[in-house]
Amino acid sequence: MTPRLGVGMVGYAFMGAAHSQAWRTAHRFFELPLTPVMVVLGGRTPDALRAAAERLGWADVETDWRRLVVRDDVDLVDIGTPGDTHAEIAIAALAAGKHVLCEKPLANTVAEAAAMAAAAAEHPELVAMTGFSYRRMPAIQLARRLVEQGRIGTVRHVRAQYLQDWLADPQAPWVWRVDREQAGSGALGDIGAHVVDLAQFVTGQTVDGVSAMLDTFVTERPVPSSLHGPGGTVGADSPMRPVTVDDAVAFLGRLSGGGMAVFEATRFAWGRRNQIRLEVNGSAGSLAFDLEDMNALSFFDATEPVETAGFRRIDVTQPQHPYGGSWWPAGHALGYEHAFTHQVVDLVRGIAAHEHPAPTFADGFQVQRVLAAVERSAADDSRWTPVEATA
Amino acid sequence: MTPRLGVGMVGYAFMGAAHSQAWRTAHRFFELPLTPVMVVLGGRTPDALRAAAERLGWADVETDWRRLVVRDDVDLVDIGTPGDTHAEIAIAALAAGKHVLCEKPLANTVAEAAAMAAAAAEHPELVAMTGFSYRRMPAIQLARRLVEQGRIGTVRHVRAQYLQDWLADPQAPWVWRVDREQAGSGALGDIGAHVVDLAQFVTGQTVDGVSAMLDTFVTERPVPSSLHGPGGTVGADSPMRPVTVDDAVAFLGRLSGGGMAVFEATRFAWGRRNQIRLEVNGSAGSLAFDLEDMNALSFFDATEPVETAGFRRIDVTQPQHPYGGSWWPAGHALGYEHAFTHQVVDLVRGIAAHEHPAPTFADGFQVQRVLAAVERSAADDSRWTPVEATA
Amino acid sequence: MTPRLGVGMVGYAFMGAAHSQAWRTAHRFFELPLTPVMVVLGGRTPDALRAAAERLGWADVETDWRRLVVRDDVDLVDIGTPGDTHAEIAIAALAAGKHVLCEKPLANTVAEAAAMAAAAAEHPELVAMTGFSYRRMPAIQLARRLVEQGRIGTVRHVRAQYLQDWLADPQAPWVWRVDREQAGSGALGDIGAHVVDLAQFVTGQTVDGVSAMLDTFVTERPVPSSLHGPGGTVGADSPMRPVTVDDAVAFLGRLSGGGMAVFEATRFAWGRRNQIRLEVNGSAGSLAFDLEDMNALSFFDATEPVETAGFRRIDVTQPQHPYGGSWWPAGHALGYEHAFTHQVVDLVRGIAAHEHPAPTFADGFQVQRVLAAVERSAADDSRWTPVEATA
Amino acid sequence: MTPRLGVGMVGYAFMGAAHSQAWRTAHRFFELPLTPVMVVLGGRTPDALRAAAERLGWADVETDWRRLVVRDDVDLVDIGTPGDTHAEIAIAALAAGKHVLCEKPLANTVAEAAAMAAAAAEHPELVAMTGFSYRRMPAIQLARRLVEQGRIGTVRHVRAQYLQDWLADPQAPWVWRVDREQAGSGALGDIGAHVVDLAQFVTGQTVDGVSAMLDTFVTERPVPSSLHGPGGTVGADSPMRPVTVDDAVAFLGRLSGGGMAVFEATRFAWGRRNQIRLEVNGSAGSLAFDLEDMNALSFFDATEPVETAGFRRIDVTQPQHPYGGSWWPAGHALGYEHAFTHQVVDLVRGIAAHEHPAPTFADGFQVQRVLAAVERSAADDSRWTPVEATA
Repeated sequence: MTPRLGVGMVGYAFMGAAHSQAWRTAHRFFELPLTPVMVVLGGRTPDALRAAAERLGWADVETDWRRLVVRDDVDLVDIGTPGDTHAEIAIAALAAGKHVLCEKPLANTVAEAAAMAAAAAEHPELVAMTGFSYRRMPAIQLARRLVEQGRIGTVRHVRAQYLQDWLADPQAPWVWRVDREQAGSGALGDIGAHVVDLAQFVTGQTVDGVSAMLDTFVTERPVPSSLHGPGGTVGADSPMRPVTVDDAVAFLGRLSGGGMAVFEATRFAWGRRNQIRLEVNGSAGSLAFDLEDMNALSFFDATEPVETAGFRRIDVTQPQHPYGGSWWPAGHALGYEHAFTHQVVDLVRGIAAHEHPAPTFADGFQVQRVLAAVERSAADDSRWTPVEATA
Repeated sequence: MTPRLGVGMVGYAFMGAAHSQAWRTAHRFFELPLTPVMVVLGGRTPDALRAAAERLGWADVETDWRRLVVRDDVDLVDIGTPGDTHAEIAIAALAAGKHVLCEKPLANTVAEAAAMAAAAAEHPELVAMTGFSYRRMPAIQLARRLVEQGRIGTVRHVRAQYLQDWLADPQAPWVWRVDREQAGSGALGDIGAHVVDLAQFVTGQTVDGVSAMLDTFVTERPVPSSLHGPGGTVGADSPMRPVTVDDAVAFLGRLSGGGMAVFEATRFAWGRRNQIRLEVNGSAGSLAFDLEDMNALSFFDATEPVETAGFRRIDVTQPQHPYGGSWWPAGHALGYEHAFTHQVVDLVRGIAAHEHPAPTFADGFQVQRVLAAVERSAADDSRWTPVEATA
Repeated sequence: MTPRLGVGMVGYAFMGAAHSQAWRTAHRFFELPLTPVMVVLGGRTPDALRAAAERLGWADVETDWRRLVVRDDVDLVDIGTPGDTHAEIAIAALAAGKHVLCEKPLANTVAEAAAMAAAAAEHPELVAMTGFSYRRMPAIQLARRLVEQGRIGTVRHVRAQYLQDWLADPQAPWVWRVDREQAGSGALGDIGAHVVDLAQFVTGQTVDGVSAMLDTFVTERPVPSSLHGPGGTVGADSPMRPVTVDDAVAFLGRLSGGGMAVFEATRFAWGRRNQIRLEVNGSAGSLAFDLEDMNALSFFDATEPVETAGFRRIDVTQPQHPYGGSWWPAGHALGYEHAFTHQVVDLVRGIAAHEHPAPTFADGFQVQRVLAAVERSAADDSRWTPVEATA
Repeated sequence: MTPRLGVGMVGYAFMGAAHSQAWRTAHRFFELPLTPVMVVLGGRTPDALRAAAERLGWADVETDWRRLVVRDDVDLVDIGTPGDTHAEIAIAALAAGKHVLCEKPLANTVAEAAAMAAAAAEHPELVAMTGFSYRRMPAIQLARRLVEQGRIGTVRHVRAQYLQDWLADPQAPWVWRVDREQAGSGALGDIGAHVVDLAQFVTGQTVDGVSAMLDTFVTERPVPSSLHGPGGTVGADSPMRPVTVDDAVAFLGRLSGGGMAVFEATRFAWGRRNQIRLEVNGSAGSLAFDLEDMNALSFFDATEPVETAGFRRIDVTQPQHPYGGSWWPAGHALGYEHAFTHQVVDLVRGIAAHEHPAPTFADGFQVQRVLAAVERSAADDSRWTPVEATA
């Protein structure tokens, strides 16, 4: 057994469950230099918290995250709460000498994200990672590898879409994700942030300017009988509460290498339950990824003879592929949650190696600036808006 | 045999071949109120013109289109030349009392398109049609029908892409389509116009404002040894000639009904030989079309029970489908050229019925204004630019 | 204009329309050494025959095929009638010194097919071709080319399916294709014959033995009010008539090179309007074709590095592909009918070159022996049944 | 915390890892009436066993399965060893009063399977389940549900394929799975058994007779330097060892309800890493499943209007779907291993409810008889061979 890495996690909803599964699973399939120990779960409601800790496998609970982040048996704080709490928790954890893994988007505002990145910079001995988990799909890692190898040449085009449909029904219940206070933004920060990160990661470039439009199609929603948890229902007499974030966003972007990018994120694409589509066209080939077929990457190699050239659907579960050989034999599908496990693997290895595995807080801060530029452009007649450089 | 409709066609390259196939074929599969007769082919180079006329099945030739448009045995003038000649020929043909079918984009400038639409308006007894042939894919017609029936409800999103790769190679030879003089614009007018038309047709709405970016990735190209015709080759010592149009365009749009639209057209998407993708998300369902699977339409009906809801791939070759029952038994694929035949069918029926089958010149003029707004926005920092209303 | 090739065609239903389109079109897109002239159409019902001739483009009619096959202005007889008449017409045409194109299956019995092959062998100066048109899909030709080049190595597996659904409804009307007298067999000869031919053609091998099962799911069907032509309808009081052929067939086969083959043909696969699926697995790679995506061939090259290996979807419309460069620019889809045009192209070129383009009558006879072995095996408890070698 | 269920598992290779993940995970996502406790892992090699136990999460080890099955703290024995050991362990476990979960195929011979089924029948108070895990893919469960609801009517056709390629390379190393002694058969029992089970489960029918062919393409293989475990390599001087099982199998079958079935299983389908394809055509609709797209089921409903009928790709991750609502929000993909977790869920619930969740040992025995009939038919000239009824 390798040395322990005590983990304390704050938040136990969707992201908490996904992170817990990752912490429970990573060392079962991967050789890790440190063995994660699920020390303590943080939350506010004692009963629900204790039930969650038992179900998810955490040994102890803390109802105040301030106590959690200073515990001696905690080496790393994992933050899976809504965005309005990220900055405070993360900064406190870093100050307490803890590594941090923080869910995306890094924060609800650029100012908060800046403060978090600054705090991370002040503690180079600590790892501070942003939880853009989709990066850790094997197909996305392979895409990055092929771009790095020059297999598609100079990037001409990126088109990236994150399409969902869970709000397409106007009667879908109000939830904190449609509240600007808690969520910062809507589709933009929740899912648009993912495709910005994916596009930047795969191309190895940044989005340097944007022209954007945002929209809110349904401006109020019924409040469910039980606001927290999945059990709530809505009916004709449910009170209505305003939607204060965007339902959908679309924007044009310019990549630092000169290519064009088109982004779209929406929760109103009926039939697209949870679809990310990422395409990159380069001077020597193309890549295409679809989250609905997440164990595959499509690659067109323009240097091949035309007679047999075509998009190849590469099943990315071979031992030669990123994270390959650790799970099942080739051809056996991974699912959504495996990216979180890979995130833990890379995080733990980074900690042991005293490295800063990407996406760092600085990377998360940069995505935040892209999102902010999108909002500014949308508010200014879609005018071209540069993404702020870091000071 | 029904009464004859004498046809004179100008231009005999790619579009000339496609139109000829349509004129030869329409009455073989469809009941037509008038029988098209391929009277005369117009062009400038006598030898090539005569060879083309024989190959394509035209009875006579004219080396001056001015003579062609006034011939007594010509009832309809079909224009398949580059865009810079459309206005002059079409206006002359209308003045001579001939029906006109003009390839898209209607013209190279808004002014020309306006003049053409005005000429058509002055001759309500004549049919003046713009050749947006892709509208006449059965899947597109079915999409329109479903939208009209309210099957997808209020349109929230359109995403429309026209992706090609024939210029992705920097050594691909110079051709008139990369010359602003002759082509007016590049990807924008050549293929972007198609997806604007498709999006507007399927939704039954117009694009009322845009925010756009244009780009030219390869600014000069080798001139082939034989500039005209497919026989030319290029080599290391080929002279270079500037590319004066856009290689790619992307723009955001607002639909007249309030929905968001994202458009992209490029000739640099390696591996996408000739792909149109059109998706429409509405409040009650979604539609998706992919030209690489042109005999199918995907439809998601959000009113179905969730347990069995899913995108249906509708094979659109049944007798119940648009243009169905006239070609082959169900399930037997149509190809690219069949849309041109359908165009002739609708055109001829419109002439006989004294109707104005869409897309009229007015429709083509409207698309032209969208393209112009795209260019203005791109030149003005992507600022939101309303599409000019008609006077 | 190249020398004329006078064509007389017998039959003007589905196949007659497809062949007419091919005869009208071939020389418009391909350089042909002889120019087909559509001289005369043969049939029994004078009025319907004349209407068909006008619609399909034939200059004259003959109500007795015996007169048609001896006409001086006819150089080639094209037979598109039901299978029970093939032998008599084809043998008479050969005896009269005419080239012959005969629809598949070559005949309704092995004896008839043998007589036809013998007649062809007696006239080596004449071309006698069997109309297995699907061979002439570009994707199928490319598959053959890749197998010939050794790109997939030794063939291990063939799986070939022809799935339709037009008889899945028990109320689908009785038609000659369900009558043993006229059609010889059901799914077996009508569509099973196609996949046998495709499998043999692509692999370059023959099916040498089979184990089979046949089934008829619906044993009688309502006779439509108009038995001939598409106008007939059926109702509750329609008289019933027995189905005397198979609705579906499945069989195992052994290829001459040692590989295993699995065949299936059915008219009862709801939702599969007209689907052929052909897969070949070899020691060095695999091929897959799906008629629902007929302009593509899938190819897996096992010699590639595993990291980027995957089935490539090759768009087969490039100039480098079979029949490429003659129709439209790359990426513009061909349809069902184009295979018939290619068939005419290869036939006419074969005639001019004094060659015998495959599939010859001998090839059609061989397929017939496979079908006969299938029926014998099915009647004998599925026992392994060798395909009869030719004497 | 619900009452404990002590689990002892024998075998810790591929299946051991998959089962361990299921035992660790089930109660984290599902409400279970008993809480699985991973008591003891059984194996023969002490060092490897202890390392495996630690990695996989088992509290103790036993180097003799005879001791494991009689431990007081073990309530259930989970068998994941090669097939030649199944009968002995399972019968001993049942005799010791333990519930049993046994990997498929149930045994290497019909006699062994019969003995196991008999032992299970003697202990109706115990649950004895066969590990056909693929049944527990949500898409397969939904397929079964739709068949039960009559949504596809009377079953006409089943086509079921299990395609892999890990032995397609003749240099792929020898492994116990190619040894008749240990594995019983090759593709037939390893993967063919799965598709037999799936076809029978989804249709609710049995395969009552077969006509079959088996083949071994590569008759000897190099023995890796380390025979056990993944670390071994092979080279030019590796000793060769015979392959004594089938590489591939194909067979026709007749379903108890009268439909036709076609089965194929092979390890030589290059490019198909691990693909199961199951199609069922009925009188009222069709179903299609592809393991490469495991979170979807395709459904064609023939009762819909033709205009909008088409195969629907149902994303089966909604709360309304089998096992839905327990994992992630809709649209978030499950992977290969989740079926094992579902298996544990149903097994544990069955134990608590004193029910016998299918597939029981009797079900596994029935599949074994189908496999035996396949082998007899293949050895007897593919003659039709009834599947033995149970005494």
